[in-house]
This record gives sequence, C-alpha cells and structure tokens, in this order.
Amino acid sequence: MKEPYRLHYAPDNASLVIRLTLEELGLPYETVLVDRRQNEQNGAAYRSLNPNGLIPVLETPQGPIFETAAILLWLADTHARLAPAPDSPDRAAFLKWLFFASNTLHADLRILFYAEKYIDPQHAESLRTGIRPRLREHLRVLDGVARTTPFWLHADQPSVLTYYLACQMRWMALYPAKSDRSWFQLADTPYLQRILMQLETRPATRTAVAAEGLGVTPFTSPSYANPVEGSAT
Amino acid sequence: MKEPYRLHYAPDNASLVIRLTLEELGLPYETVLVDRRQNEQNGAAYRSLNPNGLIPVLETPQGPIFETAAILLWLADTHARLAPAPDSPDRAAFLKWLFFASNTLHADLRILFYAEKYIDPQHAESLRTGIRPRLREHLRVLDGVARTTPFWLHADQPSVLTYYLACQMRWMALYPAKSDRSWFQLADTPYLQRILMQLETRPATRTAVAAEGLGVTPFTSPSYANPVEGSAT
Repeated sequence: MKEPYRLHYAPDNASLVIRLTLEELGLPYETVLVDRRQNEQNGAAYRSLNPNGLIPVLETPQGPIFETAAILLWLADTHARLAPAPDSPDRAAFLKWLFFASNTLHADLRILFYAEKYIDPQHAESLRTGIRPRLREHLRVLDGVARTTPFWLHADQPSVLTYYLACQMRWMALYPAKSDRSWFQLADTPYLQRILMQLETRPATRTAVAAEGLGVTPFTSPSYANPVEGSAT
Repeated sequence: MKEPYRLHYAPDNASLVIRLTLEELGLPYETVLVDRRQNEQNGAAYRSLNPNGLIPVLETPQGPIFETAAILLWLADTHARLAPAPDSPDRAAFLKWLFFASNTLHADLRILFYAEKYIDPQHAESLRTGIRPRLREHLRVLDGVARTTPFWLHADQPSVLTYYLACQMRWMALYPAKSDRSWFQLADTPYLQRILMQLETRPATRTAVAAEGLGVTPFTSPSYANPVEGSAT
C-alpha cells in the first residue's frame, strides 16, 4: 500500500472512531469499503485480516490491527498524541476508562444491536430490555467521570476516548432503528453532552461527517448516515 | 499503605490474574479481601475505589485502577515486562488480542456467569445457551493464535495475556457451578492446553494456588477454590 495506513470501514460503523482519530492526528490513510450488504465482512478475504469478521481493521506496518480500542491505543501511543503516554501519571486512569468503554459499554452496546447473536431470536427483545438499564447506568458513571473533567476527556484537546464515547452515544441514539430508543436521552448526561457539542466543531469531525454522510450534528442530534458509498447496516 | 500496591481481591475472582502478574513480576503487594458473602463489593467503601462495584481494584501510586485488562497492561508497561513494549513491533498484535480477551471473551464469560444481570431470570438459561457456542468459537480462534506461537503467548516467558487466558479457561471449566459445563473441553484447544500445562509449573502459579486454595492443577484440571479466607462467589 502507498500510505502507511489502510482503514477497512463501513459508514457509521465502529471504523468511524478510527477515521476520526486518523483525521485528528493528521495522518494520511487509504480507506477500503467493506460492503455490508454483501456481508463482505464474513468473506474469506476479510477474515484473513480479522478472523472474527468484525469491522474495523486497520492495516499498519505492524500488520492488520482489529478491535476498535486496540487500534485507538496503538495509534495514540505510536504517534504520542490523543492519550496520556505510557509513563504519564495519568495513564492508569485513562486505561481503566478506555477498557471500560470497550469491554463494558461497547460490549453491552453490541448486545443491544445484535441481540440475535446472543440468544434465540424469540427472546431478543427480552435481552434488549435487560441491556438498556445497564447502558443507562454505564452512562451515569461516565458522566460522573466527565464532571471531574480529566484532561483526556476534554473536547478541546480530545483523546481517543473522547471520540470513542461520542460515537457510541451517537449509535445509542440511532440503533437499532426498529427498537425502542427513548431510553437514551443525551440531556441525562449533561457533562458528556457538553463534550459532544464541542467535538462537533472540530475539523476532524467535519471531515468524517462529509466522508460518511453523518449530518451536521452527528453527536448531539444525529440522523441516519447517508453515505456516498456503502451502507451502515 | 506500606507497599506500593494493594490488591482488593476475592479468591478465584478476576483478581487472580492480577495476583499472578504481581507474583510473576516479583513485586511486593498487600491484599485486602473483599467479602463477597457480605456483598462488600457493592458497599460505599468499595465503590469509592470502583464505582462499578467489580473486583479487582489495584491501588497504585497513580490511584486505584480497575478493569482487569487495564491493570494488566498498566503493570506490564510500568515494569517493562510481560508484554511487548509500546514501541515494539509486536505491540499491535499483542494489543488486539488483549482487547479481544477483555471485550469479547471475558465480556461473554460475564454473561454466562451472571446472566441474570442481563435478562429477566426466566430467560437466563436461554441466554446461557446462546453464549456457549460463542465462547467455543472465541476459543477456536484463540487456539489458532496459540498455534502460531507468538512469544507473548508462550508459557516459558508468559505475558499478562497468557495468564489472563489461562484463568478464563479455568473459570469456564468451573462456573457457573449449577449449569452445563460439558461444552468446555480443554482438549478441543490443544495449543492452549499445552500452554496451560506449562503455566502450572511456574513459581508464580504455585504461590497464587497456595494463597487462594486452587488445587494442584488449577488450569488443566481445576477444582473449586478452598481458600484460607473469603469465598469465590
């Protein structure tokens, strides 16, 4: 590949966080659309990059990386920006919330979106009903973190975690399309809400919005993606 | 505290991975039992350390850290052992599997163990039924990684990920006690099985086994914990 990075993406998928990070870092990168309508993420070619068949993959000089949060942390450390450095006194706090965002918030969100992958479809709605109060509680805890305004959760100098949370909250407002979404009210988490408002003004956000057709207020009042290519689901 | 590290633990809980790591690193540490029978992990004192009320917490000079994998990565980076360094060419591969172990394997394992936290109890067994084939598939993928023998998954120079996977496989064999566990057969993942056998010979493992009453073959043929203090559930 010509550029050092190649992002395998679908519009408004988890790859969006990686695109925002690459833009914020000002790094050149290529994109490769994964055609979800053709279920391309489960094909042999894609699975040779990620055996789990999940989006995103970032091809790097160290080979293909997957797992959204792993890519985020690796990019931040490799380019020494968007996260406290490994020897920073703020590293511990940053890591615990990054892993929480990945293994609890995002993990539960996946259950909400793809409940049928976890349980017999006849009980999928029951599982969604169980997940929503968990997500509300996670957000309540995270808003408490945002209230203390650690520098790695600011919007004026965002970290990879700032973008990660913003995207997850966008998805909560939109997906699954045919399911109750009234449980999610951005105003319930005012400290996070303020961060999301500020993030929308950043050039990296504007560039990603244009590339994936995400509308003018992608975090605080999101609308479904209307991308130039590909589809979100 | 006298020592730089204080581990809040319950026998055979996720804190076990942290104990093994501290032992492998040869670091002094204190332990504080979290009394699960008294539901101490949900009390105000414990929640001041971890607002999510989960075990473990490691108190450090940077404050309390939680999320098992965050503690593992932070310890490895801080002491420059048991993981590829941030500037190592092997860092990307290590991180993607560490996050997978945390946000997919461990996240699904939590659902199996605590299904009632995710869904109305009348559907808990249905959820467990849906989770088991997912776990089998995750293990199949991980055995494929072990087959390529990356150095950070060896047992003779184990990384934090080696111990993390070994403990998770131990728990799969044992928990939940009153649920079908026949789905898990260590022999189905021969490359991981070999790693687990070797891990059992390490001094760090023997010390942790003694401290938490884990029996002579804690990974390859585990028995329920018979600890000197506290209880696993």
